[in-house]
Amino acid sequence: MRVKLIVEYDGTDYHGWQIQPDAPTIQGVLEGALRRMLGESVRVAAAGRTDAGVHAAGQVVSCTLQRAVAADTLLRGLNALTPRDVSIRDAAVVADDFDPRRAARSRVYLYRIWNARWPSPFWRRYAWHVVQPLDLTRMRVAAASLVGEHDFSSFQGAGCDAEHAVRRVLRSEIEQRGPLFSFTIEATAFLRHMVRNIAGTLVEVGDGSRTPDVSTLLAARDRTAAGPTAPACGLCLSRVNY
Amino acid sequence: MRVKLIVEYDGTDYHGWQIQPDAPTIQGVLEGALRRMLGESVRVAAAGRTDAGVHAAGQVVSCTLQRAVAADTLLRGLNALTPRDVSIRDAAVVADDFDPRRAARSRVYLYRIWNARWPSPFWRRYAWHVVQPLDLTRMRVAAASLVGEHDFSSFQGAGCDAEHAVRRVLRSEIEQRGPLFSFTIEATAFLRHMVRNIAGTLVEVGDGSRTPDVSTLLAARDRTAAGPTAPACGLCLSRVNY
Repeated sequence: MRVKLIVEYDGTDYHGWQIQPDAPTIQGVLEGALRRMLGESVRVAAAGRTDAGVHAAGQVVSCTLQRAVAADTLLRGLNALTPRDVSIRDAAVVADDFDPRRAARSRVYLYRIWNARWPSPFWRRYAWHVVQPLDLTRMRVAAASLVGEHDFSSFQGAGCDAEHAVRRVLRSEIEQRGPLFSFTIEATAFLRHMVRNIAGTLVEVGDGSRTPDVSTLLAARDRTAAGPTAPACGLCLSRVNY
Repeated sequence: MRVKLIVEYDGTDYHGWQIQPDAPTIQGVLEGALRRMLGESVRVAAAGRTDAGVHAAGQVVSCTLQRAVAADTLLRGLNALTPRDVSIRDAAVVADDFDPRRAARSRVYLYRIWNARWPSPFWRRYAWHVVQPLDLTRMRVAAASLVGEHDFSSFQGAGCDAEHAVRRVLRSEIEQRGPLFSFTIEATAFLRHMVRNIAGTLVEVGDGSRTPDVSTLLAARDRTAAGPTAPACGLCLSRVNY
């Protein structure tokens, strides 16, 4: 039987999603818990391979099990076997050919910025601390102009093995609640470090060191034209749509 | 000069506010940072002495310094010297006789409950995980009936050295955002474990194992009549009013 899991994790203490021989990873935690629970070696696949330090509130994971297990039993059993920073929110049986990456219609990422002079003890693991004051209106203008189909070469991280850099952004908006800025971006797919490179650029727009005119940036198709890569801790894969 | 600091902390890794010889405490962290920054031994006093594992988003701390220091210098210097889970949000010069505990008109505490079948990786440090479904309406009725001046003996923790158990509750309300319940209670002063004992009782009201009629409970003036002490991790001293 094939199952689909919705997984949440605080990625702070992990070397990302993908399994590595000598470092804790989310894939490693989940495969270990499945092995302990079911006594079989199971390979899990994710909708998006998050980088080291990146979080997920709605990662979608799928695997094929030799034994039939009730989804509810799987949910409770896995939550008892995973550490406190990795949680299974939902488990369901899916079609045998379900591929969480290929079947995804879009992914939603959230990038959080803590904009205050003092660092927040509560957001330190989940937001980028930016001290210089940010202008929400400027950032919103820049964020909104990313919506649509564009060549995102200027925001593509090195080592990205995508065939081309054209992506369709469905939503790109910023909300502010007190010192906390939340940037939400939804796209059919993303390039390596794309959200963090956009977040780094938006902060430069917000602090006035860069114009909100993103179209020139996109047209440049040059990574050096955009801002720095924002830290991993602010990023969260919040949802995958099918 | 006497200064007033507004301090935030994630209390997870601390043995509470009050200094102890061989355990990390918030008071110990602040006095250590002041000593390193100013080269003098400074004793700090807090508006509320939080217990082990309890957080603060607006603790008020005061101390007298031998040297004159600009408030802004103090803010930056202390934030550079405190660990990431303790932060100084504001610093200001106050009258020489300012006593953060006696001068306080009221304190506001927040108790958070994560009510879902799965444990949240993001709220695990800041909320009590309750699995059984909670009824918001029932809990609101119970919370609202705490407002006013009452004898809170039924919610008084053992070892509380208060002269009497009468306290005036100014606000007592619950909000729900998805699986997260936030119980806010404001009172002129609190008894030992009072908020956690109320939270433990509210959860029993919410899951149906106890009636929302809190007046009978208050009238009993008997700690064993109320619910269990809720875990420290859900509690946060959110504000002190002067």
